[in-house]
Amino acid sequence: MPSEFALIRRHFTRPARHTDLAVGDDAALIRPAPGMQLAISTDMLVAGTHFFADTDPEGLGWKTLAVNVSDIAAMGAQPRWVVLAASLPGADEAWIEAFARGFFSCCEAFGIDAIGGDTTRGPLNLCPTIFGEVPFGQAITRSGARPGDDLWVSGTPGRAALGLAHLQDRTTLAAPCLDDCLAALHRPQPRVALGLALRSIASAMLDVSDGLLGDLDHILELSGVGAEIDHASLPLAPLVAACGDAGLAFRACTAGGDDYELLFSAPPDRRDELLALQDSLQLPLHRIGRLTADIRQVSLRYPDGHLEKLAASGYDHFGRDA
Amino acid sequence: MPSEFALIRRHFTRPARHTDLAVGDDAALIRPAPGMQLAISTDMLVAGTHFFADTDPEGLGWKTLAVNVSDIAAMGAQPRWVVLAASLPGADEAWIEAFARGFFSCCEAFGIDAIGGDTTRGPLNLCPTIFGEVPFGQAITRSGARPGDDLWVSGTPGRAALGLAHLQDRTTLAAPCLDDCLAALHRPQPRVALGLALRSIASAMLDVSDGLLGDLDHILELSGVGAEIDHASLPLAPLVAACGDAGLAFRACTAGGDDYELLFSAPPDRRDELLALQDSLQLPLHRIGRLTADIRQVSLRYPDGHLEKLAASGYDHFGRDA
Repeated sequence: MPSEFALIRRHFTRPARHTDLAVGDDAALIRPAPGMQLAISTDMLVAGTHFFADTDPEGLGWKTLAVNVSDIAAMGAQPRWVVLAASLPGADEAWIEAFARGFFSCCEAFGIDAIGGDTTRGPLNLCPTIFGEVPFGQAITRSGARPGDDLWVSGTPGRAALGLAHLQDRTTLAAPCLDDCLAALHRPQPRVALGLALRSIASAMLDVSDGLLGDLDHILELSGVGAEIDHASLPLAPLVAACGDAGLAFRACTAGGDDYELLFSAPPDRRDELLALQDSLQLPLHRIGRLTADIRQVSLRYPDGHLEKLAASGYDHFGRDA
Repeated sequence: MPSEFALIRRHFTRPARHTDLAVGDDAALIRPAPGMQLAISTDMLVAGTHFFADTDPEGLGWKTLAVNVSDIAAMGAQPRWVVLAASLPGADEAWIEAFARGFFSCCEAFGIDAIGGDTTRGPLNLCPTIFGEVPFGQAITRSGARPGDDLWVSGTPGRAALGLAHLQDRTTLAAPCLDDCLAALHRPQPRVALGLALRSIASAMLDVSDGLLGDLDHILELSGVGAEIDHASLPLAPLVAACGDAGLAFRACTAGGDDYELLFSAPPDRRDELLALQDSLQLPLHRIGRLTADIRQVSLRYPDGHLEKLAASGYDHFGRDA
């Protein structure tokens, strides 16, 4: 029986297309295009912490890379290269083959070269490091938001959290919505095209991995601003339709992680461009509020005009307070 | 008590010196100098596989980065940036502080900016990804060796393996040699200056992490050559002096890993430059043999002229056959 190293070599060696030297030497060699900055992000996914050890390996392969791609998308950068370090408990060829299928389908989907890695024996642990390119000075950081900017979010954040709640018997989703929510949980779609299109529009941006309000606080802290969110503008309707519970839907939308939607700010005079963008990308963009000068304060405005100040403890991670 | 995330932030946030955007956003931003290729390497070190869970954390911090730096040195590249992903079983501030001290002392020693990372809870696992710069076309790969080239190795490979054998009660080292061997094992010195100096001299190169003969095979395979090694030229004397066992010394030198010396080939007309280099770098360089056209065949020439063909199974990893 081949060792896991032979299996890794068999299943993880694919032709690289924009790489000077890929797998097989002491280091890989790449050449960013002239005038480009390199955006770099690393994630570590641990069995038992981030996923169950019996998770479908093909979905896990996709998600391992997709969550990393999302970090690059959130900078307005183009994902280009990835290295993968992995610790595996043993040599299960079917598992490795399925994981590789999912991982490389994500590489294909986003034009990414897998250029190297490291494999060792140990508790299941997956650590991709990804590299994207962005023209110098055009990356969208978390620190550029200004009071008066609109606050936007893509897609329907909360679907992955509802999918997880369903799997954990905390709710029961109706069939068509269930598929959507499980797809959001297991096969997240990083918003690369949106991130690129926002380069000259968004003033600050991040991807929602831990929950909308919790992640929003990173923008508020680094930009030195606050936020006022319109309850009526949150994309709650599809979530309420799915689970029939307005409270659960609200918590999934505002505190659920794992959707990898983009949360960003933009000046109000860019609204028309953003509405045109949602049509061209076929991706809903929701203007959910505006930024204020009240540093790190988040308020929720209800349809009757009532304004509720949210305490930071009010938006703990969905998984923890559920 | 602060969480391990607060501790990581406290102990791992240091000023970056040649980085556009470091820790704190979705991705770090760097800018390789014009005309440079980026050399990238990732390593995963797992407790129980690569080190004991009770290893001195300061030494572990140094070694975690040093083995990664060695991969960059082996390309003839200048190490510049690193990201560190880590899975930690809990929040032990003394451990984290000591690990960070070792890690950053290695950053300081080699002028490396730590620009980001990821921390999570789980079995102890350390995954650095390192980035070096090398002028386009000047990287030293494993595939450029030619028959007739000399084969060289730096330093005294085998000391780390002897240090390990001592700790495992497989030998007893005399006091002054013991310190040397334990230093080689716990605080390896990646040969960055040598790697840079060899850019225009070496035809192929790698760092010895798994054992001299086993790693040599990677050069032989990728370059399509063989090797004839002169027994009398191997730097065995200091090892024999340390352990008093010629057989153990030979195995430590040829099959012991973890020294991170550089193994390289160079045309014979570069010998004078290499001898001058060992003086200027104060680092012994040993010409241990020559490359042949006999693909992947390794032979050992004894002082009496006798030539012994080595089987691939003859140079298994030191730790496994000991």
